[in-house]
Amino acid sequence: MRGAVIYGAHDVRAEELPMPKILEPTDVILRLSATCVCGSDLWPFRGIAKIERPTPFGHEYCGIVEEVGRDVRSVKRGQFAVGSFFASDNTCPHCKLGYQTSCAHRQLVGGAQAQYLRVPLADGTLVATAEMPSKDHIPSLLAASDVLGTGWFAADAANVKPGATVAVVGDGAVGLLGVLSAKQLGAERIIAMSRHDARQKLAREFGATDIVTERGDDGVARIKELTKGIGADSVLECVGTNESMHQAIGACRPGGYVSYVGVPHGVTLEGADLFFRHVHLHGGPAPVRRYLPTLIDLILKDRIQPGKVFDTTMPLDRVADAYRAMDERRAIKVLLQP
Amino acid sequence: MRGAVIYGAHDVRAEELPMPKILEPTDVILRLSATCVCGSDLWPFRGIAKIERPTPFGHEYCGIVEEVGRDVRSVKRGQFAVGSFFASDNTCPHCKLGYQTSCAHRQLVGGAQAQYLRVPLADGTLVATAEMPSKDHIPSLLAASDVLGTGWFAADAANVKPGATVAVVGDGAVGLLGVLSAKQLGAERIIAMSRHDARQKLAREFGATDIVTERGDDGVARIKELTKGIGADSVLECVGTNESMHQAIGACRPGGYVSYVGVPHGVTLEGADLFFRHVHLHGGPAPVRRYLPTLIDLILKDRIQPGKVFDTTMPLDRVADAYRAMDERRAIKVLLQP
Repeated sequence: MRGAVIYGAHDVRAEELPMPKILEPTDVILRLSATCVCGSDLWPFRGIAKIERPTPFGHEYCGIVEEVGRDVRSVKRGQFAVGSFFASDNTCPHCKLGYQTSCAHRQLVGGAQAQYLRVPLADGTLVATAEMPSKDHIPSLLAASDVLGTGWFAADAANVKPGATVAVVGDGAVGLLGVLSAKQLGAERIIAMSRHDARQKLAREFGATDIVTERGDDGVARIKELTKGIGADSVLECVGTNESMHQAIGACRPGGYVSYVGVPHGVTLEGADLFFRHVHLHGGPAPVRRYLPTLIDLILKDRIQPGKVFDTTMPLDRVADAYRAMDERRAIKVLLQP
Repeated sequence: MRGAVIYGAHDVRAEELPMPKILEPTDVILRLSATCVCGSDLWPFRGIAKIERPTPFGHEYCGIVEEVGRDVRSVKRGQFAVGSFFASDNTCPHCKLGYQTSCAHRQLVGGAQAQYLRVPLADGTLVATAEMPSKDHIPSLLAASDVLGTGWFAADAANVKPGATVAVVGDGAVGLLGVLSAKQLGAERIIAMSRHDARQKLAREFGATDIVTERGDDGVARIKELTKGIGADSVLECVGTNESMHQAIGACRPGGYVSYVGVPHGVTLEGADLFFRHVHLHGGPAPVRRYLPTLIDLILKDRIQPGKVFDTTMPLDRVADAYRAMDERRAIKVLLQP
């Protein structure tokens, strides 16, 4: 089969790879309907996260069940299913609390930029649809696998409530879907921080009421200005840099909520500063599995179209171009056809 | 009048000071019924927080209204009232959200280790009792002014719910009253971290079900052991050091809640570590004013006896001895009689 392998900074290749096999009786093999490149894939692509050896890459996926291990009960051959980047048993105490990405038996799912994928702990990881979805729904269902689930967690972790004023730091796919999620959760005012025309447009389409182009202290000042000096009730930090984190905390009102869902790179928080900010802070790897049933339902009922974040589609063999397009911000997010 | 003045490290003196006066029409002068030494007063006493000039000290107080400014409406001369360390207007957006210690017009109340005290913004700061409380209630009402309100905020900010497993880091008065607060909020299991006999005893009296004497990584391991490897649902960090903060975060389950209510000294959090911990974090200067009506009610109905944290009572003129007794951990908390 064909699949993407990352060799190091700026070196991703589509190659012929061995077909994945059932290794554990709880495994499933999916024939992928679509896959894509994640903003977090750009950290190693840019050389910021080190790659030790050539590694099959990608962690966003949806597709048709090709083969099931003998202990798998919840999905059947031929069904369409969506999963997330961490496989989880969905029965341990952390899973029961809704934190499947901290599952006691979690396993990172890798190598999803490919034609076929082995998904461990399939019963706890995959959510199958009742019927085969239409082709039009595939991009949105793929988005549910990570960026939508992550944007939704960002909104949920930032306690977005009906009537809230929400600020979103980051205009990548996660930030844009954070806007969509905040809208779904009833936010009245949604301030998107973006200085990129196409992204601003999509943010507005997803529900943003205001756009702030300033960054850092100026961005904070602008949000304070827009909120009568109070700050936002909820701030979604969807980047993961020290600047974006401090921007998010600074834009939040005392007693408000800051979520952070991008893997932090070089982020340091001073206790005394955080103390006097008086904000709530919650984040981490989004427990997408918790939200998948709700999100899949919203998508299949055409209540949300998160697939709009895929502004570019390429065949899997052009994976290197896909990384470059996202790295150079020419594409918001690239869907790869396996 | 007599009052305490801090001159520098290990140098606190009881002195003759001028009587406080009404400076603003929103001020009240209280004749204090009791005052005390706070754990946070020990930071400057130990020379860790710098003292620039001789400063009248103390911020915990309750007493009888001696004089009211012309704009004060909610308290009258002769009434008994309790306030908190930050004066607040209780009408700004931050106050309305319950974060009076981030009030847009907040003022630090200082010089409460004295016979008389000027309280600014009295309408938004003081809570008067309907009747004159008995002498027996005075220590508990004094505790409500800071340590009880702070312990209660710690439990509330750590989302303590009926049935919860709670860990409390710190066995000072705030930690001990965090135990009491967690009990009141319905916690089923309360693990107090303490290695001091008298404090362990009081923790048990306040509702602790388990005592952990280990600290740091060993303390975390012990809490994991006591919770079947899961971690506590809620952890109250009531110290403010880097070690105690990391101990609190480490003892919390993924998806659980960590509160921190001691002013952090040298606390640094790494974003990536916090991210994978998956905890909720909330803290800051406790908005005691939010809780005062509830706490005063519980005290006057004899439902709680937070005044038990005062294991030593001294006349105000022995304030230097009081600081020493607390610094050397001979006393949990010293009540000063003005």
